[in-house]
Amino acid sequence: MTTTASYTVTGMTCGHCVSAVTEEVSAVPGVTDVEVDLATGGLTVTSEQPVDESAVRAAVEEAGYEVSGR
Amino acid sequence: MTTTASYTVTGMTCGHCVSAVTEEVSAVPGVTDVEVDLATGGLTVTSEQPVDESAVRAAVEEAGYEVSGR
Repeated sequence: MTTTASYTVTGMTCGHCVSAVTEEVSAVPGVTDVEVDLATGGLTVTSEQPVDESAVRAAVEEAGYEVSGR
Repeated sequence: MTTTASYTVTGMTCGHCVSAVTEEVSAVPGVTDVEVDLATGGLTVTSEQPVDESAVRAAVEEAGYEVSGR
């Protein structure tokens, strides 16, 4: 089964920011796909099993940004 | 002798942009130091001999930004 979870990320200003978030969240165990929309801050995380929100938040913060909503 | 040249770069929005410009301009032959100010767009290029403005402009464009003034 495929699970998708949507978050809103603040602080991204350019394509490099999108790359940094994509890279960090892609490294979360179980994540199979990551989509980031720079204009809206939308982050969509796809995985086989649900992934802990805390792990996604930690990955976004590791990249230097914040999850402001889900 | 040390030469410094100042440019203004437009389009940089975050630290990743600064890194990209710094990296590309640092790779221009003869350049010994590069300083970028994100807030003002200021780019200061230091070299032993004067470096062609066209080479600096090309490096900034390679990074994905534009020199808007000198």
